[in-house]
Amino acid sequence: MKENGYRASPSYTLTLRLRLARKPGTLAKALAAIGRLKAAVGAIDMVSAGEGVITRDVTVQVHDEAHGRLLLRELRKLRGIELGPVSDRTFLMHLGGKISVIPRSPLKTRDDLSMAYTPGVARVCLAIAEDRERAWSLTMKKNMVAIVTDGSRVLGLGNIGPEAALPVMEGKAMLFKTFGNVDAFPICLAAKTNEEIIAAVKMLAPGFGGVNLEDIAAPRCFELERRLRAELDIPVFHDDQHGTAIVTLAGLLNAVKLVGKKLAKLKVVVAGAGASGIAVSKMIMDAGVRHLIAFDRAGAIWLGRPEPMNEEKLEFARLSNPDRFQGSLSQALRGADVFIGLSGSRMLEGKDLARMARDPIVFPLSNPDPEIDPEIAWRYARIVATGRSDYPNQINNALAFPGVFRGALDVHARQINEAMNRAASEAIAAQLGPGELHEDQIVPSIFNPNVAPAVAAAVRKAARRSGVARRRDEEGKPVPNSELVGQLS
Amino acid sequence: MKENGYRASPSYTLTLRLRLARKPGTLAKALAAIGRLKAAVGAIDMVSAGEGVITRDVTVQVHDEAHGRLLLRELRKLRGIELGPVSDRTFLMHLGGKISVIPRSPLKTRDDLSMAYTPGVARVCLAIAEDRERAWSLTMKKNMVAIVTDGSRVLGLGNIGPEAALPVMEGKAMLFKTFGNVDAFPICLAAKTNEEIIAAVKMLAPGFGGVNLEDIAAPRCFELERRLRAELDIPVFHDDQHGTAIVTLAGLLNAVKLVGKKLAKLKVVVAGAGASGIAVSKMIMDAGVRHLIAFDRAGAIWLGRPEPMNEEKLEFARLSNPDRFQGSLSQALRGADVFIGLSGSRMLEGKDLARMARDPIVFPLSNPDPEIDPEIAWRYARIVATGRSDYPNQINNALAFPGVFRGALDVHARQINEAMNRAASEAIAAQLGPGELHEDQIVPSIFNPNVAPAVAAAVRKAARRSGVARRRDEEGKPVPNSELVGQLS
Repeated sequence: MKENGYRASPSYTLTLRLRLARKPGTLAKALAAIGRLKAAVGAIDMVSAGEGVITRDVTVQVHDEAHGRLLLRELRKLRGIELGPVSDRTFLMHLGGKISVIPRSPLKTRDDLSMAYTPGVARVCLAIAEDRERAWSLTMKKNMVAIVTDGSRVLGLGNIGPEAALPVMEGKAMLFKTFGNVDAFPICLAAKTNEEIIAAVKMLAPGFGGVNLEDIAAPRCFELERRLRAELDIPVFHDDQHGTAIVTLAGLLNAVKLVGKKLAKLKVVVAGAGASGIAVSKMIMDAGVRHLIAFDRAGAIWLGRPEPMNEEKLEFARLSNPDRFQGSLSQALRGADVFIGLSGSRMLEGKDLARMARDPIVFPLSNPDPEIDPEIAWRYARIVATGRSDYPNQINNALAFPGVFRGALDVHARQINEAMNRAASEAIAAQLGPGELHEDQIVPSIFNPNVAPAVAAAVRKAARRSGVARRRDEEGKPVPNSELVGQLS
Repeated sequence: MKENGYRASPSYTLTLRLRLARKPGTLAKALAAIGRLKAAVGAIDMVSAGEGVITRDVTVQVHDEAHGRLLLRELRKLRGIELGPVSDRTFLMHLGGKISVIPRSPLKTRDDLSMAYTPGVARVCLAIAEDRERAWSLTMKKNMVAIVTDGSRVLGLGNIGPEAALPVMEGKAMLFKTFGNVDAFPICLAAKTNEEIIAAVKMLAPGFGGVNLEDIAAPRCFELERRLRAELDIPVFHDDQHGTAIVTLAGLLNAVKLVGKKLAKLKVVVAGAGASGIAVSKMIMDAGVRHLIAFDRAGAIWLGRPEPMNEEKLEFARLSNPDRFQGSLSQALRGADVFIGLSGSRMLEGKDLARMARDPIVFPLSNPDPEIDPEIAWRYARIVATGRSDYPNQINNALAFPGVFRGALDVHARQINEAMNRAASEAIAAQLGPGELHEDQIVPSIFNPNVAPAVAAAVRKAARRSGVARRRDEEGKPVPNSELVGQLS
């Protein structure tokens, strides 16, 4: 579908209402204009046929807003064609929001009401007042995650605020439910400081079994996560850090299998030292990588660097770049086995990759603009993974967070620790057997229904072994409803 | 079903697993024991038939916990019957919580993902970043209400805390969705002061179209509501005050029609000056009642009373009891037309009602224990309404709040004001035509599907007239999606 620099995109689907003069060839004229601009025509629906005029809704995929505007301008020039309202399928999908809060059982009779609400509910309240831990079985806390943001760093859009962050958090809630059967609710906070966010999340915690931090600016997000983890007794997981790290490590584990290398002997270069860059680097070093150099805007990060370093970078400098390499990114790539980009900007060319060691593994993960054009990367590298859904090997956090929280909630975990994250990585990687592993397939599809359950099982096991599971019963064995029996016997 | 002091209740339904020796008459023996205790037998299910033993699940309704315990004790005494696990239908209904957060459209394909999440969602975020008001159409804010509590005064149970309040708030969310198609989410705050609650709700406000305050202790709740109304640009509605007041006034409007009296000429006595007592009194005075005396624990409230009065009671003393009556409740009832009880305790006898004027209207609304036994009240009064579902004329807030918020959300209201509350009362009262109005039916059934839409329509109209509606388009006319068209044309 890529032609003339335009790539029609399903996320940019317009429905155009056209009032066409009832003369032969009018619709053809409109379609020809659409075709000239390389927009893809989808459904053509008849709306009404009046005297002299036929009204039709024509759905077209365009590349971006500029392309859409151009198309409308061209259509307006045509004789015998009047352009009515234009609707955009992505915006239509968002009308009225993307999530709904529904009862898990119907309220059809007085009996239903008297159990779900007064007077029956009072007994359940009293049972929880006696022992707050019962909220884990008798309330929404059992399956509910707060998706918390202040909107300070949403996607690549920057600090757009809590209202504008809502569509992302609602989308995230959809992913949680669809892939992990986890109920998740957007908490978009009008907050200016970490202290405010911490105060709000601590107050909200009684109703939730976990907290997913999302799209919060670095370096603030590090302290926020650290503080919340210390002050709450439910898991706190910053998806931009750990979700990305889990899936990136999964991809790397499978990539090194394919090229026959060992983690301990790799030279890895990472571009970007924000939330995800640092988390990915730390996680792959924990997994066995010893030789890793990360770059921020000021260049290579090394212990002793005169350019400013925040607390996280200083700590990170102690762990990484053991030789205190101080050259450029391009120089660092000489002889490197792996490049991972989480910088948010295009920065590499083919010749940079040409300097790498044999069988380069290249993960330009920035989205929507990877660090290097993936089509160029594929020419030089043995394995390429991106953050985009339109190339093979999408490093998509949605492979991780639904299963990670599913597992954590199942055992009423106190936290999500490194052992659980590592177990999640390995479970994702293990979804591809030797026969399925291929340069074009180093991570499973997001639609593979086995991923989340496998991740959840691995996370449950790791939580039990590392002592953060409140529920210690054996896997697969139903838990006796001790609360219920306890009420009356 | 009321016998021997026991009233079997659907909210107290137990399922008993009985292992019965395979001899004739064993089941009959068990059922006889249940019958002797006046428990009502429901379903009898066969679980398994083994060698010498038949296992059955027998469902029985009991009156309360003591009754249930008594029953289990009796069954354990029987020969040839072994009692297995006992489950309680109300507790079973609460297992795992009562609400779920679901996607409004499925995520089945990459196209779905690319519209609901990245990359398509970015355009929607940017559109809202440009104009925050667009959150009202493009996000969950359009239909989402926060049910906010600190658990400081839950039902009649007192300060049981945020975890134990969850089942009530979840039940409320079920009612919102079932009767008003409003999405509502429990926000149970671990907060100790109004300042903390205010800070949390202000931070949370971007994602919500309204706030329903619930079960917060008086007199703190008054200041909380006042402050939040002043500081937020979305409606704040304390259901314990206004929901109760709306439905009580609806009942009173119909009751006076039946007895042929005028509001302006009524003498009304109110027992209880907490959140609901004061709100109900104010609302019926606003509607035209001039002669009203309210009582708190210290007696009649009058301007100049030496007993302590908080700010609300002082303001209330200025509005009510114009003759500064200082006698007892029983004395006040002499010649009164209406009694309304919102005190939380039983306090009246038949002889108190016998002193009232002709055709007494008696609303002992405390729940579960009304101010006077409803069966006694019916002997002396022409019309009796209670808060209970097992007598006629249940004054149930669920007749009001789903429609009130439905209407407020529909017009993107800035607040819910007195005009909207009054319109809601009148709409509820008007649901019963002259032929339907009867001593046993002064308010419609909570299951009457016309109530919430009628309330919503009245609230929308009142919001527009009183200038608090952001959306001013005509009722019933679809709103053009100016945001969408605006994006591209």
